Amino acid sequence: MEMLNVGQFELVSNAFSFAIAVMGAATIFLFLGRSQVASHYKTAVTISGIVTLIAFYHYWRIFDSWQGAYAVTKTGLEATAHKFNDAYRYVDWLLTVPLLLIELILVMKLSREETTAKAQKLAGAAALMILLGYPGEISADVGTKFKWWFLSMIPFLYIVMNLFSGLSKAINAQPESVRDLITTARNLTVLSWCFYPVVYALYFIPGANVGSAEVATYVQIGYTISDILAKAVFGVFIYVVAVRKSEANA
Amino acid sequence: MEMLNVGQFELVSNAFSFAIAVMGAATIFLFLGRSQVASHYKTAVTISGIVTLIAFYHYWRIFDSWQGAYAVTKTGLEATAHKFNDAYRYVDWLLTVPLLLIELILVMKLSREETTAKAQKLAGAAALMILLGYPGEISADVGTKFKWWFLSMIPFLYIVMNLFSGLSKAINAQPESVRDLITTARNLTVLSWCFYPVVYALYFIPGANVGSAEVATYVQIGYTISDILAKAVFGVFIYVVAVRKSEANA
Repeated sequence: MEMLNVGQFELVSNAFSFAIAVMGAATIFLFLGRSQVASHYKTAVTISGIVTLIAFYHYWRIFDSWQGAYAVTKTGLEATAHKFNDAYRYVDWLLTVPLLLIELILVMKLSREETTAKAQKLAGAAALMILLGYPGEISADVGTKFKWWFLSMIPFLYIVMNLFSGLSKAINAQPESVRDLITTARNLTVLSWCFYPVVYALYFIPGANVGSAEVATYVQIGYTISDILAKAVFGVFIYVVAVRKSEANA
Repeated sequence: MEMLNVGQFELVSNAFSFAIAVMGAATIFLFLGRSQVASHYKTAVTISGIVTLIAFYHYWRIFDSWQGAYAVTKTGLEATAHKFNDAYRYVDWLLTVPLLLIELILVMKLSREETTAKAQKLAGAAALMILLGYPGEISADVGTKFKWWFLSMIPFLYIVMNLFSGLSKAINAQPESVRDLITTARNLTVLSWCFYPVVYALYFIPGANVGSAEVATYVQIGYTISDILAKAVFGVFIYVVAVRKSEANA
């Protein structure tokens, strides 16, 4: 990989630190807010906080791994013997992405059977999506990257289709006061999730150099923004839905 | 012992970090969820969370010990003066394995006498099983490893037999809505526990080299997966049983 310059290294470091602060703050907000929602919605809010807590932990490790992978010297940036560990992101996603879908399903308060069926189907597809993405992420070869990106898009599109068609009926059955909010939460899921394959695709867009310092910088910052939207912002949304539904006794 | 390569070292590191995240997440989930079960089941859920908390602590230590035992250099992996500390696992199991059996007994809500009798018998056998396993784990000699594995299997089989024959009557007395769940919890205990002796046996299966880097890698990853199933997944199961029984007022 092409060597980053000090400015790129610091920009990514600051983005990681920002994510640590946001995820930590969201975790405390959600855990404290849990006492303000009705019994039925507590699990959805608990899981929202657990997702941001898991992300907080991993961004801490990611920050440390990034700092350990480079040494700032008087003449510029140098690589150390420790490679930046990309696996932390994938381990994080393997845990949090299925949980994010479960949050969304739980806050809808469907029947127990429907909740279990949808949770299993969507969480399973989400885990498959992450597992299929990893071999491409760690490969240095553009063709290999594209192949695994493509395979990973199959469960991704299955989830998106399910969120649109399968959940639309359930959304229409929600109380009026939260219907728009749940629709927004669903759209936020789809929108923030679309960021990930786009960021990943930076590796193989025509003209981009897969090993360039710019691409490496954009990918790290892109994933960080996506994580903040999909986990912290989304988690607060789930909390607001839970508060409104609690007020409406729905 | 044969030296690991950097890839094996990183794979095991990532598995340990994954376990830290899972155990931490499960702990928070169980401690928060405790407020959602009836008074009678709070102790079972508390203990489930304590088990994952103890495991969280030990995986943190295991991760640090693993990082300290090897140095990544520009030419590959080198052993440091610090040996990886296997004892953390056994100290963890000595505490958590008896507690896991107590969780399962408590969530059944047997009579006080039966609870005490079963808890003493099974927890005692579990502690004995762990103590008998340790001398084999730290020995470099295949014969010694096999001897202690064999001795450790005696209390192991005693526990498995008890879970099947002794608990079957108690399971049939459970309310219908949770009978399947408790049966699954019991089977999950037995199944996840069977992983441990199988992983341990990797040391002395014919053709395997007890000191090879492959065996060392598989053993660490195998134990980690077993711990996640037996503690975190099992703990969430116990919580679901407790919620269902609370709803049924059983």
